Amino acid sequence: MKIESEWMRGGTSKCWVFETEHLNETQTSLDELLPRLFGSPDRRQIDGVGGATSTTSKAIILHRSTQPGIDVEFTFAQVGIEEATVDWGSNCGNCSAVVGLYAIEKGWVLPHAETTRITTRNTNTGQIIVQRVPTPGGALPIVPEANMPGVAFPGYKVGLGFQNPAGMTTGSLLPSGAANDVLTADGTNWTVSMVDAGAPVVIVRAEDLGLDVARYDTWVGGVELQLDTLDKIRRQAAVLMGLAATAAEAARAIPKLAIVGAPAADSDADVNVMMLSMGRPHPALAITGSIALTLATRTPNTILSNITGDTARSTLRLRTPAGVIETWSAEHDGSLVVGVDRTARTIASTTIYLPEALGSVAEASLASASY
Amino acid sequence: MKIESEWMRGGTSKCWVFETEHLNETQTSLDELLPRLFGSPDRRQIDGVGGATSTTSKAIILHRSTQPGIDVEFTFAQVGIEEATVDWGSNCGNCSAVVGLYAIEKGWVLPHAETTRITTRNTNTGQIIVQRVPTPGGALPIVPEANMPGVAFPGYKVGLGFQNPAGMTTGSLLPSGAANDVLTADGTNWTVSMVDAGAPVVIVRAEDLGLDVARYDTWVGGVELQLDTLDKIRRQAAVLMGLAATAAEAARAIPKLAIVGAPAADSDADVNVMMLSMGRPHPALAITGSIALTLATRTPNTILSNITGDTARSTLRLRTPAGVIETWSAEHDGSLVVGVDRTARTIASTTIYLPEALGSVAEASLASASY
Repeated sequence: MKIESEWMRGGTSKCWVFETEHLNETQTSLDELLPRLFGSPDRRQIDGVGGATSTTSKAIILHRSTQPGIDVEFTFAQVGIEEATVDWGSNCGNCSAVVGLYAIEKGWVLPHAETTRITTRNTNTGQIIVQRVPTPGGALPIVPEANMPGVAFPGYKVGLGFQNPAGMTTGSLLPSGAANDVLTADGTNWTVSMVDAGAPVVIVRAEDLGLDVARYDTWVGGVELQLDTLDKIRRQAAVLMGLAATAAEAARAIPKLAIVGAPAADSDADVNVMMLSMGRPHPALAITGSIALTLATRTPNTILSNITGDTARSTLRLRTPAGVIETWSAEHDGSLVVGVDRTARTIASTTIYLPEALGSVAEASLASASY
Repeated sequence: MKIESEWMRGGTSKCWVFETEHLNETQTSLDELLPRLFGSPDRRQIDGVGGATSTTSKAIILHRSTQPGIDVEFTFAQVGIEEATVDWGSNCGNCSAVVGLYAIEKGWVLPHAETTRITTRNTNTGQIIVQRVPTPGGALPIVPEANMPGVAFPGYKVGLGFQNPAGMTTGSLLPSGAANDVLTADGTNWTVSMVDAGAPVVIVRAEDLGLDVARYDTWVGGVELQLDTLDKIRRQAAVLMGLAATAAEAARAIPKLAIVGAPAADSDADVNVMMLSMGRPHPALAITGSIALTLATRTPNTILSNITGDTARSTLRLRTPAGVIETWSAEHDGSLVVGVDRTARTIASTTIYLPEALGSVAEASLASASY
């Protein structure tokens, strides 16, 4: 069996892009098909298209939308590596950035002069993401020339605008009803802000952790000594946000936790940020997390807006260990759009071979467990 | 610019297979073109087809041969990851295993009933490798079903027969003229055997290193304490094999070094082996190294044949950290053929996009150095 796929870079991820119709033709469960195409279960994914890392074992499944005002609907799949599983529970901001470019390259959306706007809807989260791709003179340039941190080569610039991102998970921007709350962990009271936008995030002040706010380079070391306490804060927040019935039942990935502090006066950032991801300091900042922090700066009296001031700001510069990330915000026809810029590019057009029917996939999985 | 490529698994590697003609059409130096297609320089190869590991950043370039008796000529390219370079200095046994299958799938060689024989020539080394692919009833089976250690899914079985592999680098099987020699390193005399077949290899006895020969699981720890001494032995051997003028000038990768010891009486292997690769214990055994050790067992009075006995043996089972590897040997029309079995499969047919002309590649390389 043959399955068409475009292999695309979106931001700092590589994503395999399938059309829904092509996958439907296989008449096969995607929870079984995608791991086999990717070469899972196998920590090296040596017999499939997966890249054996979380940022290179990703798929986007998309089709033209029949809904008015939506051009493309897309679903993100995080394909397991050592396990033959697919996680459908969240969207990936980086892979989102390939969707608009795909629509232009396939002729689903005709390019306009200067900028082409593609309205996309992510089905994992229900989030509408308006994508803007520069198309000077009404065409994609032959040679892409936009650069971004963390990517060694140019791509096409893609602006990702998250439309009204507040409350997609819990129903409201401030799930506890307050801009800041006090919770108790390890016998200490902690003032936190809990926001739901892009993803649910609990925000903690760097000074409350005893970090040297002025010396961002020392944060990782200080944070790593307090991971247990931070996870207790995160789990308490999960309960207060209505994401879990008890702290013990809180999911490992939700909510995310962000530590924030005021930058030095001469800084090139508006705020210093360190996110935890799966219990560890994250080397950068997921796009969904940056959306949440941007909404927090637009909301009076959150920990974050008390640092950044002006809640009507149109851009926000967040320092992360990997560098400064900028987000932008705009009101548009009564909607709030919060966005980030990425680059994207099609690496290859491919036809992937599925060598066996799914019965023999099951046998292969058993064989792999024994070597 | 678009370039066709088949993405194939050969043994435990993933290899991008290009036809010489398609690459020539680009009128671009392969030393510049291949790194850009693979996304190098970038430790993640995130903007290209490379897999960011040595076993997934490999290319095969091939064409039908006009030489009598040769079906396909192929060249192996190890594409750099953090550097925009290509190493043309050696062949890769795993990637070699895709060449015969490619010739059958493209119709270059018509399948015979039961087994199809494809005679290939590797241009990096001059080595002729006769490949045998089972084609029952004169066709490749629709579903590949052969398994091998280290690969979680089945592929097509490929027998790789190295024809007269002795002396491809130095001109003779025993470059020093003797089956064993004594050299001095760190004030100690070491009895070694130096053989050139598949690749140049110097062989050392496990007991001379003070290793507990009966307990193979303790070797790694013991070897790691003596890496400096082993590299001195390896460098002395480079000089005695005519590969370097002085020990200081010896290359890092050539000759390889193998430590060998007698197995327990009830072992499923004929000999226990630990190879060093780039100065470290190797988790398995490169195919070229296994060819050299097989020739050493067929040569009277080498360190290895003194362990394995019968020099006319048709199979040899080598214990490595990853499991037991079997090689086979046969005399055929006055030629010696030494071989191993692998599996191979086409993962995807692809068209890779080269987004920019080479002038802008050079700029991209500079940009990547600064992020």
